[in-house]
Amino acid sequence: MTDSPFRLSGVVPPLVTPLTEDRTLDVPSFERLIERMLAAGVDGVFPLGSTSEVAFCTDTMRAQILAEAVRVVDGRVPVIAGVIDTQTPRVLEHVSAAVAAGADAVVATAPFYAVVTPAQVKRHFEILGARSEVPVFAYDIPVCVHTRLDPAMMVELGASGAIAGVKDSSGDDIGFRRLTLMNRDAGSPLAVFTGHEFVVDGAYLSGADGVVPGLGNVDPAGYVRLHRAATAGDWETARTEQDRLARLMEICLAARDTGGWGAGVGAFKTALKLLGVIETHQMPEPWDAFSDADVARVRAILDEVGPQA
Amino acid sequence: MTDSPFRLSGVVPPLVTPLTEDRTLDVPSFERLIERMLAAGVDGVFPLGSTSEVAFCTDTMRAQILAEAVRVVDGRVPVIAGVIDTQTPRVLEHVSAAVAAGADAVVATAPFYAVVTPAQVKRHFEILGARSEVPVFAYDIPVCVHTRLDPAMMVELGASGAIAGVKDSSGDDIGFRRLTLMNRDAGSPLAVFTGHEFVVDGAYLSGADGVVPGLGNVDPAGYVRLHRAATAGDWETARTEQDRLARLMEICLAARDTGGWGAGVGAFKTALKLLGVIETHQMPEPWDAFSDADVARVRAILDEVGPQA
Amino acid sequence: MTDSPFRLSGVVPPLVTPLTEDRTLDVPSFERLIERMLAAGVDGVFPLGSTSEVAFCTDTMRAQILAEAVRVVDGRVPVIAGVIDTQTPRVLEHVSAAVAAGADAVVATAPFYAVVTPAQVKRHFEILGARSEVPVFAYDIPVCVHTRLDPAMMVELGASGAIAGVKDSSGDDIGFRRLTLMNRDAGSPLAVFTGHEFVVDGAYLSGADGVVPGLGNVDPAGYVRLHRAATAGDWETARTEQDRLARLMEICLAARDTGGWGAGVGAFKTALKLLGVIETHQMPEPWDAFSDADVARVRAILDEVGPQA
Amino acid sequence: MTDSPFRLSGVVPPLVTPLTEDRTLDVPSFERLIERMLAAGVDGVFPLGSTSEVAFCTDTMRAQILAEAVRVVDGRVPVIAGVIDTQTPRVLEHVSAAVAAGADAVVATAPFYAVVTPAQVKRHFEILGARSEVPVFAYDIPVCVHTRLDPAMMVELGASGAIAGVKDSSGDDIGFRRLTLMNRDAGSPLAVFTGHEFVVDGAYLSGADGVVPGLGNVDPAGYVRLHRAATAGDWETARTEQDRLARLMEICLAARDTGGWGAGVGAFKTALKLLGVIETHQMPEPWDAFSDADVARVRAILDEVGPQA
Repeated sequence: MTDSPFRLSGVVPPLVTPLTEDRTLDVPSFERLIERMLAAGVDGVFPLGSTSEVAFCTDTMRAQILAEAVRVVDGRVPVIAGVIDTQTPRVLEHVSAAVAAGADAVVATAPFYAVVTPAQVKRHFEILGARSEVPVFAYDIPVCVHTRLDPAMMVELGASGAIAGVKDSSGDDIGFRRLTLMNRDAGSPLAVFTGHEFVVDGAYLSGADGVVPGLGNVDPAGYVRLHRAATAGDWETARTEQDRLARLMEICLAARDTGGWGAGVGAFKTALKLLGVIETHQMPEPWDAFSDADVARVRAILDEVGPQA
Repeated sequence: MTDSPFRLSGVVPPLVTPLTEDRTLDVPSFERLIERMLAAGVDGVFPLGSTSEVAFCTDTMRAQILAEAVRVVDGRVPVIAGVIDTQTPRVLEHVSAAVAAGADAVVATAPFYAVVTPAQVKRHFEILGARSEVPVFAYDIPVCVHTRLDPAMMVELGASGAIAGVKDSSGDDIGFRRLTLMNRDAGSPLAVFTGHEFVVDGAYLSGADGVVPGLGNVDPAGYVRLHRAATAGDWETARTEQDRLARLMEICLAARDTGGWGAGVGAFKTALKLLGVIETHQMPEPWDAFSDADVARVRAILDEVGPQA
Repeated sequence: MTDSPFRLSGVVPPLVTPLTEDRTLDVPSFERLIERMLAAGVDGVFPLGSTSEVAFCTDTMRAQILAEAVRVVDGRVPVIAGVIDTQTPRVLEHVSAAVAAGADAVVATAPFYAVVTPAQVKRHFEILGARSEVPVFAYDIPVCVHTRLDPAMMVELGASGAIAGVKDSSGDDIGFRRLTLMNRDAGSPLAVFTGHEFVVDGAYLSGADGVVPGLGNVDPAGYVRLHRAATAGDWETARTEQDRLARLMEICLAARDTGGWGAGVGAFKTALKLLGVIETHQMPEPWDAFSDADVARVRAILDEVGPQA
Repeated sequence: MTDSPFRLSGVVPPLVTPLTEDRTLDVPSFERLIERMLAAGVDGVFPLGSTSEVAFCTDTMRAQILAEAVRVVDGRVPVIAGVIDTQTPRVLEHVSAAVAAGADAVVATAPFYAVVTPAQVKRHFEILGARSEVPVFAYDIPVCVHTRLDPAMMVELGASGAIAGVKDSSGDDIGFRRLTLMNRDAGSPLAVFTGHEFVVDGAYLSGADGVVPGLGNVDPAGYVRLHRAATAGDWETARTEQDRLARLMEICLAARDTGGWGAGVGAFKTALKLLGVIETHQMPEPWDAFSDADVARVRAILDEVGPQA
């Protein structure tokens, strides 16, 4: 990779991908989604991540999403593009596509489908770092890839310049604390982001540089306030905001007619439709949009603890 | 899918993908590999499966492998092509490509990366079955996709015509017995294959129609003998052959300098090189070819219990 | 341990523990259960295993169960007693109690609750073997103890005299084949039993010496026939019997009002009550006896594929 | 249970069990351990937990440990006794013994060894709560028992009076935040403790009432300072102290010659021996005391970030 022109920090929401009823990209909704985030003060956007339904998108669809995101953002904040695929050679193709489309950085997971050893995980990121023209972020998401990223390995990859940062969706706050401490000891080569919407205040207390909140689609202003309070050392404000956002995040656990990935992303889309930001809450195949009963469950939570000006 | 022109059974090895040193497809080696299998009497071949390093292949590489396999086989046996990818829309693109390339059937796993519920797994195969022009086989491989395929669901999908068969790599012989019994009760809509090289005799006793053995790259004749003995009810011959093949399969557990997926496929490639079938034992990035010490371990096992005429 | 006075093989059912309504041992029912098994021709009995609800029994209850089992069996077949507890010092106390009560051998799992390494697992069995006055069987049951027993380690423990055999409830038929082959290569120091009621024929084909079937409480004669057919090399008879027993084993998957351990043992007790062998289908706290609806589900299966004379 | 005479909060270390070389309780070392904690200002002590090697202790040894703890503490702080065993009837016996020995409360896990459903987990705690004469704490420790305790269930058990609090060793900070929020909404029936030494500051930010730190054996004063800072809202002091304690906690990850449970408790014992608090770092069978090389690794960390006055 080349030297990074920026040091990323703050709130970088993973963008949901609004669909029309027939499951094509709904561009006007996507524009409203992004503009609302920028107005709220986010520090970057992250298309083509797990929340963006990247695993469901054909390469054609991926290219369209990224092109539109770059067009809409228009340089106002960095665009960090997911390059999610099974193993190194396939990921490298997405890296090339992302760079060509104007992404400012890319986000890659550990290899998946074929079981890898720690040596292969490290090599994977070394190869990505060596061949990418933009900074590479490592995405620790064992629920999807079933491999953990070792904190010491990540700091070593940061020190060697292979990766510029980490998005932690590991669900392991102990590992996160160890990562931030090791990173600090190594001179902080990594920008460290948490992906856990429920406990961002604690992650900041542990030393996070920022947050990649799926719920930031629904309530970007809340996460911006939380980031600013934590950065200012105003922990009481941070945790009060976090408590509200944690209650709002219950929308992802509210569905009774579906589950898994679709329960979370489906809730974000449902909330965004209810808020008038996007047009439909359509989901990619093989999923359906939330049932009426599940929509009502989301609405009840929104009514109680939804976005506040 | 259209009605299947064939009912698959017997030995259908998943083809390893021979590479040149610089990691392009080694076509002459691939030809030798396939011709040796056909000479041994296999009943089909399976390119683009896990053993074929499909997770590492770009779409361009996938297309080349399948085209060459179809060309070399030239209609002598069915070519069953893997269409492995994360979720339904991406898999559908591979189905189209496989059909266009001349595959006789396709093999798809449960969706992966994004966590799915049983309802989505079923819908996934229903969509594939409805839109594929060739028969669809369900590939139960939780070690890669981290989702199991329920026996009752598979039989239901078979009865409705969505899938034509199952390749079972679940590691669950209880589930396999339940599947074969349920399938028989439903009129045997499914052709049921085991993917477990170590215990094929037991799988046949449980009612398997065939086997998809990675080790069939190394010793296709052994699996053909095992299939024929089991089919003939000569269980003593079947288990004697299986005992030898199980000892040979220890090559996949022999490596000390690597592990995971690479230890198994690396062993197949190493053995094939030692046997003079393929040119190199090169592996895809981020893996290396077996170390000299691991090559020696494979050689020792081959010398003791390797392929017999 | 002292030299074993016997080499165990054949059918050794784990005994369910019949309870009165107020959850004390129902001795007359226990007598009927054991006498029926002996009449069917079993080769041993196994009280205080998982099926015997050992994890629910106080030490006083354990002592009573074992004393009654030894009294009823009266030397006609070996009594193999479970000595299940968390870690070595607690297991050793159960070994002493079992020997004092007249058990012919003991069955111990890997240590559990505290996470152990392979070195500790091996040491555990070495200590048990060195201090037990009767043969020790290793019980590989990861669903309960969350640790696997490595085949090579077990054969090594057999060769050194620490253990006399293995009960395999691992759900891993590949590991089982590897175990039987390694054991044979080492001169067969171990008697190897499968605990998987669904696939006993395949286990015998793999080289099993016997079976420890929970379903043997319900249909001991079926497993005796299966054992005899397999031992005689009559595999068609073996698999026909196994197919019926596999269909009968569906009682353990039939409950809709409960799950987990209670669904299996509850089904055995329910079937035994329906067959008139035991008085109640009471379960230990915190479980309830099967609901009427679940009893009906068990009855339907029994009516179709139940014990045959 | 009777109404609790106290509302527990603050620092309640789980007591290691010092052993003589021949693995009997080292009473003088145990006294020094407890007195040092009391001098540091802890709010309670917790014998017979996982750290106390309860899974290794015979019932006789358990009784001795608890008797000595009660004697030494002599009413200065509450004594919370573990009643860890596989299933309800066995746990109830430990409850009776603990009450008779003078414990002020008991701590019980979910049932283990036999797989349970959520309904059985709830019933288990209801039975314990109904029959215990002292308050019951629920111990959420999936790494040992392989079952999670659902936050909503725990709050319901708290509201009904079955349990008085929770010790969370789940490794799931999201679940912990949800628990504290639900508990607050229900009127805070539960006292909620974290067991994660690495991230206690974040747990307090999430609303923890206290901490049960194994590392509190080594550095009780550090956790008392952390508790007091967090309680006072001085989050910068809290996290500075936590950062040091997290670095100290690396002793539990330092061993190279052992692993699992023994690596953690072995490190605590080794540090306590190096600090002159206990006489030996002996471990229960089947474990050994730390090797000299591992002792050196612990010493290096202690020298850098060990207990501070």
